Amino acid sequence: MLKNDLFLRACKRDSIERTPIWIMRQAGRYLPEYRAVREKSDFLTMCRTPELATEVTLQPIDLIGVDAAIIFSDILVIPEAMGMELEMIESKGPVFHHPIRNEDDAKQLKNIDAVKDLKYVLDAVSLTKKELDNRVPLIGFAGSPWTLLTYMVEGKGSKNFSEIKKLIYNNPSLAHSLLDKIANSVAEYLSAKIEAGANAVQIFDTWGGILSQRDYKEFSLEYITKIVSNIKRNDEPVIVFSKGVHHSIPEIANCGCDVIGLDWTMNIGDVRKIVGDKVALQGNLDPTVLYAEPDSIRTKAKEVFDSYGKGSGHVFNLGHGILPDIPPAHAKALVDFVKEESKAYH
Amino acid sequence: MLKNDLFLRACKRDSIERTPIWIMRQAGRYLPEYRAVREKSDFLTMCRTPELATEVTLQPIDLIGVDAAIIFSDILVIPEAMGMELEMIESKGPVFHHPIRNEDDAKQLKNIDAVKDLKYVLDAVSLTKKELDNRVPLIGFAGSPWTLLTYMVEGKGSKNFSEIKKLIYNNPSLAHSLLDKIANSVAEYLSAKIEAGANAVQIFDTWGGILSQRDYKEFSLEYITKIVSNIKRNDEPVIVFSKGVHHSIPEIANCGCDVIGLDWTMNIGDVRKIVGDKVALQGNLDPTVLYAEPDSIRTKAKEVFDSYGKGSGHVFNLGHGILPDIPPAHAKALVDFVKEESKAYH
Repeated sequence: MLKNDLFLRACKRDSIERTPIWIMRQAGRYLPEYRAVREKSDFLTMCRTPELATEVTLQPIDLIGVDAAIIFSDILVIPEAMGMELEMIESKGPVFHHPIRNEDDAKQLKNIDAVKDLKYVLDAVSLTKKELDNRVPLIGFAGSPWTLLTYMVEGKGSKNFSEIKKLIYNNPSLAHSLLDKIANSVAEYLSAKIEAGANAVQIFDTWGGILSQRDYKEFSLEYITKIVSNIKRNDEPVIVFSKGVHHSIPEIANCGCDVIGLDWTMNIGDVRKIVGDKVALQGNLDPTVLYAEPDSIRTKAKEVFDSYGKGSGHVFNLGHGILPDIPPAHAKALVDFVKEESKAYH
Repeated sequence: MLKNDLFLRACKRDSIERTPIWIMRQAGRYLPEYRAVREKSDFLTMCRTPELATEVTLQPIDLIGVDAAIIFSDILVIPEAMGMELEMIESKGPVFHHPIRNEDDAKQLKNIDAVKDLKYVLDAVSLTKKELDNRVPLIGFAGSPWTLLTYMVEGKGSKNFSEIKKLIYNNPSLAHSLLDKIANSVAEYLSAKIEAGANAVQIFDTWGGILSQRDYKEFSLEYITKIVSNIKRNDEPVIVFSKGVHHSIPEIANCGCDVIGLDWTMNIGDVRKIVGDKVALQGNLDPTVLYAEPDSIRTKAKEVFDSYGKGSGHVFNLGHGILPDIPPAHAKALVDFVKEESKAYH
């Protein structure tokens, strides 16, 4: 039995006494305790070592007081398991030295068996569950097929996304076959995470917003929808976070997910009117608000509450990941404020 | 008398025989003829030398066949005229070595007299008008106060925009006083461009989309509105292009502008329904579509026509500037297609 299940109840739009909060990238570089672990091991070693992944996953629960844990990992473990050599370069971010650009490249990709090939993540989930001791729920996650394919095709950080766009416009059938293959792996992977103990899962579609409305539907949402229907679960909620896809809220609400994650450019109150009782909403404070002094943070957080209005169905979060140079005290001030102030909205 | 005034008539929603097209950043690096000029002079020298600015402004008229010229210049000439030392670094983009962070920095900014301090731009406008010989209209432009202030405060390219966000959240009154000062200069500058011969002006709000809906209204749209009311003009249309501000279309339509420029994430048909006869729309093909082969370019361009539907009030453009590695033949294929295909929509 979970001691604090506010997050899960909010995802299901059950009535609750206050709004739960967690923070995307909460187990991350803004915490000195995280950096201390990171100094001793590189990023991928942390992902691959269940004890280290568990340690940093728990840090924000103890230090910041969030209402859910999210397993420390990376969305790129899937392409890596498919056989792509992944390097994390401090100044550049993730790099695939042999990106996928054509049919021959695509043929090199292995079909993965999530339970075997990503056992280290599942072990981290099990160990974290044990160490959490039911204090708060644990969230598992994966990248959306579109976002993973974007990384796999670009090979590194991109400004204009020229390679992935060339692929979808000049060779859409190859793009679709790759997206389908990735979608199958992601569904299996998220099912395995739930089997290992995750209480909810989130699909991160970081690059959904680089597409037009029509292309988003064809190349991203279709595969998210497939994953959501194929995940083996009991009542574990599925959260879909597509950044920058303001044009497709009603369609995402109909994809079978329980919660839509919103970036900070969305008016959460307007979105609530659009989706009605169909899904819960997660978000969506501008992450840069945490650069401000606590008084301004509270004012801006209250604007999110006022926009959403009274009642359940809201999981407080930032509209994107917490930035690495945010003072931890500011994150804590936000969490404390949300816990106290939100009571008035229930 | 302009020989081709389709662009101006579309901005005014007058009936026309086909849809006009121009391309943001059409006088730019994708053209070998531009790069030939650029090889001999640095970027700022090109801006400051009317003969060179005129030469590259005319290139896309002759080479690509667009229906409007836009004066070659840069939005950062205003902060530079205010006394900020500007350097264009090839790999990094524009850099201000002494960004504005506090009241003392702000005090160093001069009040500018656009006619005197930016005479070189006005001379370029006059010379281009003469060389154009009334073939097509000439567009003048400026950055929005919010976008200019973002550059002035960040000092260089930014991923998280931490400095400008700290300013607006921790010291909003300083931000407002700077925005107001910049707005006055921009209004005077655009008025002078019209006086020098520009047939229309566009306000580029490149960074509007990093703000929440509420902050966009307070820190960007308020000052765009002020500029639009203060520009001295006869019937020269004003175009507002705010990237990523899907949340504020009705408010922009009411700011006094004639045309709203849309990025490629917007559904132009849906926006048309929202704005009705209030304003014309400009856009909004995904700029990366030009990486595709001409057949795909035509298919995607037709989707924009079909979305907008029949009738006037549409200026075809990309949803953002043309990218430097686009083949000029692809830009030409788009322009040719728009000119021919659009007849069926009028």
